[in-house]
Amino acid sequence: MKKVNNIAVLTSGGDAPGMNAAVRAVVRTGIYHDLNVYGVMYGYRGLLTDDIFPMESKSVANIIQRGGTVLKTARCLEFYEFEGRQKAYENLKKRNIEGLVVIGGDGSFNGAMKFSQEFDIPCIGLPGTIDKDIAGTDFTIGFDTAVNTAVEAIDKIRDTADAHDRLFIIEVMGRDAGYLALHSGIATGAENILIPEHTTTVDDIINDLQANERRKKMVNLIVVAEGHEAGGANGLAKRVKEKCPQLDTKVCILGHIQRGGSPSTMDRILASRMGYAAVDALLEGIHNVMIGIVNDKVAYTPLDKAVKAKQEIDPEWFKIVKILAS
Amino acid sequence: MKKVNNIAVLTSGGDAPGMNAAVRAVVRTGIYHDLNVYGVMYGYRGLLTDDIFPMESKSVANIIQRGGTVLKTARCLEFYEFEGRQKAYENLKKRNIEGLVVIGGDGSFNGAMKFSQEFDIPCIGLPGTIDKDIAGTDFTIGFDTAVNTAVEAIDKIRDTADAHDRLFIIEVMGRDAGYLALHSGIATGAENILIPEHTTTVDDIINDLQANERRKKMVNLIVVAEGHEAGGANGLAKRVKEKCPQLDTKVCILGHIQRGGSPSTMDRILASRMGYAAVDALLEGIHNVMIGIVNDKVAYTPLDKAVKAKQEIDPEWFKIVKILAS
Amino acid sequence: MKKVNNIAVLTSGGDAPGMNAAVRAVVRTGIYHDLNVYGVMYGYRGLLTDDIFPMESKSVANIIQRGGTVLKTARCLEFYEFEGRQKAYENLKKRNIEGLVVIGGDGSFNGAMKFSQEFDIPCIGLPGTIDKDIAGTDFTIGFDTAVNTAVEAIDKIRDTADAHDRLFIIEVMGRDAGYLALHSGIATGAENILIPEHTTTVDDIINDLQANERRKKMVNLIVVAEGHEAGGANGLAKRVKEKCPQLDTKVCILGHIQRGGSPSTMDRILASRMGYAAVDALLEGIHNVMIGIVNDKVAYTPLDKAVKAKQEIDPEWFKIVKILAS
Amino acid sequence: MKKVNNIAVLTSGGDAPGMNAAVRAVVRTGIYHDLNVYGVMYGYRGLLTDDIFPMESKSVANIIQRGGTVLKTARCLEFYEFEGRQKAYENLKKRNIEGLVVIGGDGSFNGAMKFSQEFDIPCIGLPGTIDKDIAGTDFTIGFDTAVNTAVEAIDKIRDTADAHDRLFIIEVMGRDAGYLALHSGIATGAENILIPEHTTTVDDIINDLQANERRKKMVNLIVVAEGHEAGGANGLAKRVKEKCPQLDTKVCILGHIQRGGSPSTMDRILASRMGYAAVDALLEGIHNVMIGIVNDKVAYTPLDKAVKAKQEIDPEWFKIVKILAS
Repeated sequence: MKKVNNIAVLTSGGDAPGMNAAVRAVVRTGIYHDLNVYGVMYGYRGLLTDDIFPMESKSVANIIQRGGTVLKTARCLEFYEFEGRQKAYENLKKRNIEGLVVIGGDGSFNGAMKFSQEFDIPCIGLPGTIDKDIAGTDFTIGFDTAVNTAVEAIDKIRDTADAHDRLFIIEVMGRDAGYLALHSGIATGAENILIPEHTTTVDDIINDLQANERRKKMVNLIVVAEGHEAGGANGLAKRVKEKCPQLDTKVCILGHIQRGGSPSTMDRILASRMGYAAVDALLEGIHNVMIGIVNDKVAYTPLDKAVKAKQEIDPEWFKIVKILAS
Repeated sequence: MKKVNNIAVLTSGGDAPGMNAAVRAVVRTGIYHDLNVYGVMYGYRGLLTDDIFPMESKSVANIIQRGGTVLKTARCLEFYEFEGRQKAYENLKKRNIEGLVVIGGDGSFNGAMKFSQEFDIPCIGLPGTIDKDIAGTDFTIGFDTAVNTAVEAIDKIRDTADAHDRLFIIEVMGRDAGYLALHSGIATGAENILIPEHTTTVDDIINDLQANERRKKMVNLIVVAEGHEAGGANGLAKRVKEKCPQLDTKVCILGHIQRGGSPSTMDRILASRMGYAAVDALLEGIHNVMIGIVNDKVAYTPLDKAVKAKQEIDPEWFKIVKILAS
Repeated sequence: MKKVNNIAVLTSGGDAPGMNAAVRAVVRTGIYHDLNVYGVMYGYRGLLTDDIFPMESKSVANIIQRGGTVLKTARCLEFYEFEGRQKAYENLKKRNIEGLVVIGGDGSFNGAMKFSQEFDIPCIGLPGTIDKDIAGTDFTIGFDTAVNTAVEAIDKIRDTADAHDRLFIIEVMGRDAGYLALHSGIATGAENILIPEHTTTVDDIINDLQANERRKKMVNLIVVAEGHEAGGANGLAKRVKEKCPQLDTKVCILGHIQRGGSPSTMDRILASRMGYAAVDALLEGIHNVMIGIVNDKVAYTPLDKAVKAKQEIDPEWFKIVKILAS
Repeated sequence: MKKVNNIAVLTSGGDAPGMNAAVRAVVRTGIYHDLNVYGVMYGYRGLLTDDIFPMESKSVANIIQRGGTVLKTARCLEFYEFEGRQKAYENLKKRNIEGLVVIGGDGSFNGAMKFSQEFDIPCIGLPGTIDKDIAGTDFTIGFDTAVNTAVEAIDKIRDTADAHDRLFIIEVMGRDAGYLALHSGIATGAENILIPEHTTTVDDIINDLQANERRKKMVNLIVVAEGHEAGGANGLAKRVKEKCPQLDTKVCILGHIQRGGSPSTMDRILASRMGYAAVDALLEGIHNVMIGIVNDKVAYTPLDKAVKAKQEIDPEWFKIVKILAS
């Protein structure tokens, strides 16, 4: 069955912890199957600039535990032009590369889809994003680490909130997806969570804060997704300060600390499994799919389906948040 | 539908990180539903010694992030005698307690099963064990934290192994279950993993070490489940030293550090969800089941079924270990 | 010599990790010497509102490892009025409290100084601040933890900076003191550090960035003290973006995560030693001093001297920063 | 003044976190002064086997935060023979290396001393050991990280001790030095500490345990230095179990997790400062000394004086331990 001899791997979009574990798995699984595995630096940009190099087993030694990505990543507008993709194709073709593993988010899959439709390079996507907003998989590489980083940070903020009887409004990443906010909020016992996917409004939050104040509950943590229409933590804080000027309100924007750091066990295992499955898929002749894990089994989703849909958040979680934060 | 007015909660068996989050969820969900919630100290022992007290919302403030269990835990041989259980029943009955939530492992469920068969106190089990060896649930409270603790420790050991070109044999907990060893081994890129559920033998490991030595691969980490018949890390090291005396072999037994510590995000969320579901089940009249999460949905398993079976480990993981550690 | 029978302890100003360890040490050392030890809630405010309670050995069990402060802290403008201090005095006097241990920063010592000058309550100050900007001591309680928290965060940001070839401008706390910025910058290999105590200017930084760009060094971390006149990280970023528009520049304001968290070993030991020394001083009749550690020995500084001076930063550190970041 | 053109650096003895930061500082400070800096692999062994290579600024990029040592380390008995040292000399001489920086413990300094007495290669020692048992410096590279690692582990064990009302006997590293045990014991509120430098005996500990049992204090943590004559944790546990059979006694040997891991802020800064000072000393013509930090200033100690003496432990610390653990 196996006809593939040369494959390449790249990381694209925002970096996510576990990307290195995925690269390691692709490289070593490839070598195990006697493939030549090429690394591409700086995502799609490296395809265009011919920043491509052969990788060995040693190239990926001791990286499973590292944050970031040894292959680096970058934006590359040219790849979204046909001429760019053609240049990319030529650089792959001259090395006889017959399969490309793209570790990244939906934007990156979008590019891979276009590329594979135009040229005969099968692409396999691995969902690497801390936002967890990709259809066709229960987990994405990086989410578990990022949410644990956010939780550790919020735990620290709670120490201070408790010491001072304060309200903290904490913004977490996730672009327009609320998973990071939801999970980190539940795990830290946040008094409220504001995410794009749910109907809690700024007015609801202000009502709750006023109710809490009446019953002398002064310590409050509110976790907000950066992409919420209220304008993130600063937007919400502005509204809260207008309506509850007597509260001691502070804002924390966790920011980029959520991207880096040594990946969690779950992300390392997930990335290892997905990287292994990506090579397996190429060998099996399965093309232009994203590797997902659904109910603890490998699942293939066509790259264009991985692009569009989003997971849904069960509304019962909001009931749980309310009850448990009481 | 609701006829329950008073419930109690206890933690039993070895402590596991996330037990406090589960207690918190039981207490607050109970109070939300206008129940009186009693805490029982020291597991079943507190039932016998009448160490039972009413809990309020504040009793569980700021414990979601704490390791250990505020309700403490203990062994209680008397509860495994009929007289002991009768005393327990009387202490519950005099407070009109109509439901008991038991957070613990299979041994604890065993006790709960007997108790509920003899007396009219419905029991709900929550799987709280770092060993993850319970049927009817994909995850147990404490496993994710324990495995991350083990992984952080092994990452540190790898620093030293690399610096010295050494072989480290590392023993992790799990009694006769190999999940902790398997997951921590994969996540740290261990060269070999020795668990009761799999056919890798001590001889296989020695062969691999000798092969690695021939190709000058001197840094080796082997993760062993404490319950492996080789006799844990010390047993394995003895055999290795006999056969490979020239290797610089060190043993680390991670031990009790794997039990404590602030629970991971996943364990906090899992425990919160399960605690919430436990009260829900009692209110719904669902009795004598363990709450599990299967494919991200709440699942009920009769307590006697939760006792016996074990999850299975997919043999493909061992192929992945071999390929990725290469 | 000992005539003291009753003492009180409070935490004041911004919370700092290790305050709980100091409270524990004061309470247990007092009890060991057969004193009654009172806790005062919410800093000086509790003195005025009579929020004062007797503490036992158990009151401080298991808090040495906790961030925040179990005695809470608050601003109290009234204490800076004579009437406020008189009320405070009356509340202490009615319990025959003959000594007050104040854990806080220079503002808090200022208040203690005024108080002890007007009323016969000897005060002992313990330097509890993450800013480390207090004369008379080599270390302050909380600094080591805060700087380690900042370093862990910046390490994560470096992962992302490396992955993307980016410039990150990172703001750390410290008000108008640069210790947190200096230490966290050196420890993370920051390319530049901007602090109020030193002559590096925004123009210097821009020149360096342009020089780095010319030699293709695109990953740059700059750590800025929040109190720098450039206007913190946002102020600096604005200037950098004007002058180096082609750089991919991101801002991170670490904020309140630097205050909380489990104290480091050094902070726990420092706080334990200082709390022990504070009671010792009261028993020895040493009054109105701050306890410091200078060259690893306990040193007393009159409270009014602890207020004014600042430690000096050796300019050689800036040479080291430059050389090592190269 | 400067006549040196070529220097070399190696790490020797047990690895310690911060060694990489020291290597980085030596390399970059050397390059800043236009020196050629050579790295020697595997400590003294690399000198003999000619495993020596030129280093550049990039060779030490992104290692300040890594545990272990990129130069690796090893035992080398041959270097303790004259012939071995002669071979080492020849390999240095053929590269015109005029100065050698040795990062290690007292055993390594011993070797360096002999070497520099016989051959004209000036040596500078940097104290790199988690044991902190070297005269002429207040701190050694690695101690602060190791003690924080031990403290984090013991904090976790306390969670379990509390949950179960247990006695834990915990063994920490340090060979025949008690600093790690003393500091980690104070910082975790250990009930007792057993170290070679102090007069507390096993009988004292048993008496204390019996007294604690009488007053129902069942949670006890005892920290033991591995080099205590009682035979470490296992030796002590044997004696305790004989005398106090009713206690639920568990043993934890923290072991090699104390060596690795990302260095703490203090160790990174210490190592950076010492590496910088080492090159400075060679340029200044200061030879055959260990770089220490005493009262926050660089101090030089002749290598043979760094070998013999040990720091002293103030007995007052034991009084503090007793009082605070009460």
